[in-house]
Amino acid sequence: MTSEQQEQAAWRVTLANIIYNTDTPAGRSFDLLLIVAIVLSVLVVMLESVVGIRAAYGPLLRRIEWILTGLFTLEYILRLIAARRASHYARSFFGVVDLLSIAPAYLILFVPGAQALLIVRVLRLLRLFRILKLARYLSEASVLTQALQASLPKITVFLAVVVTSVIVIGTLMYVVEGPPYGFTSIPTSIYWAIVTVTTVGYGDIAPKTPLGKGLASLAMILGYAIIAVPTGIVTVGLSQAQARQREREREDWVCGRCGLSGHATDARYCRRCSEVLPSGKKDAERP
Amino acid sequence: MTSEQQEQAAWRVTLANIIYNTDTPAGRSFDLLLIVAIVLSVLVVMLESVVGIRAAYGPLLRRIEWILTGLFTLEYILRLIAARRASHYARSFFGVVDLLSIAPAYLILFVPGAQALLIVRVLRLLRLFRILKLARYLSEASVLTQALQASLPKITVFLAVVVTSVIVIGTLMYVVEGPPYGFTSIPTSIYWAIVTVTTVGYGDIAPKTPLGKGLASLAMILGYAIIAVPTGIVTVGLSQAQARQREREREDWVCGRCGLSGHATDARYCRRCSEVLPSGKKDAERP
Amino acid sequence: MTSEQQEQAAWRVTLANIIYNTDTPAGRSFDLLLIVAIVLSVLVVMLESVVGIRAAYGPLLRRIEWILTGLFTLEYILRLIAARRASHYARSFFGVVDLLSIAPAYLILFVPGAQALLIVRVLRLLRLFRILKLARYLSEASVLTQALQASLPKITVFLAVVVTSVIVIGTLMYVVEGPPYGFTSIPTSIYWAIVTVTTVGYGDIAPKTPLGKGLASLAMILGYAIIAVPTGIVTVGLSQAQARQREREREDWVCGRCGLSGHATDARYCRRCSEVLPSGKKDAERP
Amino acid sequence: MTSEQQEQAAWRVTLANIIYNTDTPAGRSFDLLLIVAIVLSVLVVMLESVVGIRAAYGPLLRRIEWILTGLFTLEYILRLIAARRASHYARSFFGVVDLLSIAPAYLILFVPGAQALLIVRVLRLLRLFRILKLARYLSEASVLTQALQASLPKITVFLAVVVTSVIVIGTLMYVVEGPPYGFTSIPTSIYWAIVTVTTVGYGDIAPKTPLGKGLASLAMILGYAIIAVPTGIVTVGLSQAQARQREREREDWVCGRCGLSGHATDARYCRRCSEVLPSGKKDAERP
Repeated sequence: MTSEQQEQAAWRVTLANIIYNTDTPAGRSFDLLLIVAIVLSVLVVMLESVVGIRAAYGPLLRRIEWILTGLFTLEYILRLIAARRASHYARSFFGVVDLLSIAPAYLILFVPGAQALLIVRVLRLLRLFRILKLARYLSEASVLTQALQASLPKITVFLAVVVTSVIVIGTLMYVVEGPPYGFTSIPTSIYWAIVTVTTVGYGDIAPKTPLGKGLASLAMILGYAIIAVPTGIVTVGLSQAQARQREREREDWVCGRCGLSGHATDARYCRRCSEVLPSGKKDAERP
Repeated sequence: MTSEQQEQAAWRVTLANIIYNTDTPAGRSFDLLLIVAIVLSVLVVMLESVVGIRAAYGPLLRRIEWILTGLFTLEYILRLIAARRASHYARSFFGVVDLLSIAPAYLILFVPGAQALLIVRVLRLLRLFRILKLARYLSEASVLTQALQASLPKITVFLAVVVTSVIVIGTLMYVVEGPPYGFTSIPTSIYWAIVTVTTVGYGDIAPKTPLGKGLASLAMILGYAIIAVPTGIVTVGLSQAQARQREREREDWVCGRCGLSGHATDARYCRRCSEVLPSGKKDAERP
Repeated sequence: MTSEQQEQAAWRVTLANIIYNTDTPAGRSFDLLLIVAIVLSVLVVMLESVVGIRAAYGPLLRRIEWILTGLFTLEYILRLIAARRASHYARSFFGVVDLLSIAPAYLILFVPGAQALLIVRVLRLLRLFRILKLARYLSEASVLTQALQASLPKITVFLAVVVTSVIVIGTLMYVVEGPPYGFTSIPTSIYWAIVTVTTVGYGDIAPKTPLGKGLASLAMILGYAIIAVPTGIVTVGLSQAQARQREREREDWVCGRCGLSGHATDARYCRRCSEVLPSGKKDAERP
Repeated sequence: MTSEQQEQAAWRVTLANIIYNTDTPAGRSFDLLLIVAIVLSVLVVMLESVVGIRAAYGPLLRRIEWILTGLFTLEYILRLIAARRASHYARSFFGVVDLLSIAPAYLILFVPGAQALLIVRVLRLLRLFRILKLARYLSEASVLTQALQASLPKITVFLAVVVTSVIVIGTLMYVVEGPPYGFTSIPTSIYWAIVTVTTVGYGDIAPKTPLGKGLASLAMILGYAIIAVPTGIVTVGLSQAQARQREREREDWVCGRCGLSGHATDARYCRRCSEVLPSGKKDAERP
């Protein structure tokens, strides 16, 4: 990577180091500042939605919002310049999120209307995901993603069973406690079934008849018990993803004396020359 | 299977391929259409239960319902014809569900009465389970089913403990906060205990006295802690079911050079001729 | 056991076989009858607590109750006679539960007063635990008990942390939203903290101020995350208990050719004579 | 340790044994007394917050509180004297907690005002953590702490995802059911999202429109499913922490015949002289 960048102008390399590199002190300071600016921007949107605060500090909040929009626009342009290929950044996930988080602010100038304004502001909150960008550097996130991806087919089967159960339970409840009781329609009953099976239990709708309470009890016990299934799936998936990662790390080990590689995960000595291999502490600290 | 079917008429084979086979393009299109029709049929039943929508679009919804009933009837007849043994299909789980999902619509013609009508409509929703039919082809579902079956005796012991706890807690609560408080009878108190232990917590009934609140606190902590038990059971069961499946897959491996089979799960080289065995990637992708 | 019993009278052996043995047809029938009688007795107590049912069927229910009390008394006497040592049974867990489940019914004759009567009826419900007696014969229950016992010290540490957190959160909430808000005293606030941390969430008490809502949010996320800890503890404990049991079962295996025992858990061939060992299917079916 | 203490005055050694040592009978009695005093002190603070009890027993409770404050002050001074280095104790976690749990009582004498008084009383409750001091002697707590520390990076990634989801869901809900409905501001909506995703579900705010209910259903299913992630993380972390601890214990084993150490975790015989190694029961009892 360094050899390729030497051909580029020196200041672009420096800029890229600040913006994209999180290992240098300058890069770390930039990321910290960016996170502070994003959190501030999200807080401003939140506070502006509170009636009392908007009445008192509305103009101030809108001014901070415009300054931050300006800074984020500048940041977006700098990212385009600093990237080895501007189009590559612009089409990446964070490139799109970055653009979407500044576009709405300018859109307001051309498209008036408070209601629409509120909807577009939501997109700005996605900028928070950029904080997770740091996670890309953590092998943890990749192990988690791997485990979840590997568990996806099993979790899909599980979710299909949950959705079907919820529809059947909701419809049965509509039959048992339909009008004049609280279960006024099948969609409402299914909503209640989701509230119950996921153990949220708002209590805005609750069964009144003995039969309804019996059916609700079965739904609750079902919801209480089947949470064990996705947990088991993810645990097994995570355990395998971690084992695979450790194995991969171990395979890269090279014996210091004879140069042999491809050691077993639990190997402590080189299998050819009995040299002590580097201890497993490294991956034990970052499990 | 193919040799047996060659004796049958060619068009029945083609029909069976479309209806029962999900690997051919025609079969896939048929399944997709069927799923769309089932979801539409379920949506129609749901929407008809909403007072406002029934008032505005009632006749339209009923017409769609009759068209779908006709199509499902046709599908049922075709399935009977295409099956190698019609009686075998008719008595299978999905054969019974298919029949139950069309029968109620015709029953209405002979048995009048709105209340009864609503009850039979519920059965039609079971048709959604047919979507899960696709899951039969996923080895995931079989691993899940295996793990749950293997865990069944342990989960039965666990559920017996939960049911007993809930009855004892409910009765104690009736003694502590019986009439004139909200816990008007033992069945109501047991219902409250289920709502509490499963951490649903509607709040329609809640303890008022200090002693009742103390007892409720114990029930909550119990419910919060014992969820760990079924989770542990399913996780261990799933981990074993998966290990067994992988071992089974690995045992089928044959060394490409010497033809030796029965290799250990973690084998990377043939134990007789040291040939590299096919990598574990295949089962790593479908865990 | 059989040699010892041969010295006893033949009819006592027969009686013991019916009452204590669940393997013979007679013993199984007796157990089934007993379970039906216990469930009926519990149902009678439940139904009697419902005002409408008591008004209509009160005398009938009380008559059934007296008949069942008579039968349970007879059963208790027969158990004392059939036991190899009457005192041994009388002091066992189920001996005490059996006595406690019949004593209250007679106590009513001497100690009048409806309120006290209700309290003692609760004890009768413990008779349901006797159904679990069957579980003693399932190795499942013993694996579960072993796993929970092994996990006990870790779970105690976890519960101590939860109790402390709940007291601190409850007190902080009293300071933040004490009177005139809903958090009227520290015990009430701690009750709310338990309702929140265990994710039950009745909603009978809920924070009103922004600071209170912020604190409540932290409590919820804490409760949501730390449920992972007991689950992890029980899963690991269960996995070890099961591995230990399987190892124990495997160690009992004897090679069919040379008679060698003490084979490793994953052994497939006798390590001395290479004879194929009985497959692991037996313990795979009862995991 | 003993050699160092021999140079100290004998009575300081005796005092240290009583206060810091939990293995001697005197030390155990002291700890038990201390726990009783702390629980009593916490109970007094709790009861004083209940209006009815304060009116009836206020002066008595305040007297008990002052006696306990005196005793805790004496204990703190004795701890400073008995410690090998007073400054080392004073700056330790429990040294600071001990000071904070007596300081507020004296602060009241100089800083009047009931409101402030209530806030400082909360700190006294932290004294309960001292009970957990006993846990320091349990290897269980260290395994738990190790597992949680090792899982920390993964749990941070998970919490970041949860916090982001909750902000996005809350803002979407504000857009969908903002004023005139119950979701009056973005912070309120985020509070609702936390209540929903953690499956607490107070029901103080609940969606009213079909779109809102649909969005809430998605949030509930998300919250219900992702609890599997931290559980999986902690389970895998705990399983590894426990395996590492057992390995460490096993490595300390020395063969009784030839003195060889460094045996494998599953070793049953000395790998040099085939002597039977001490059985694994010791660590099986304390898992």
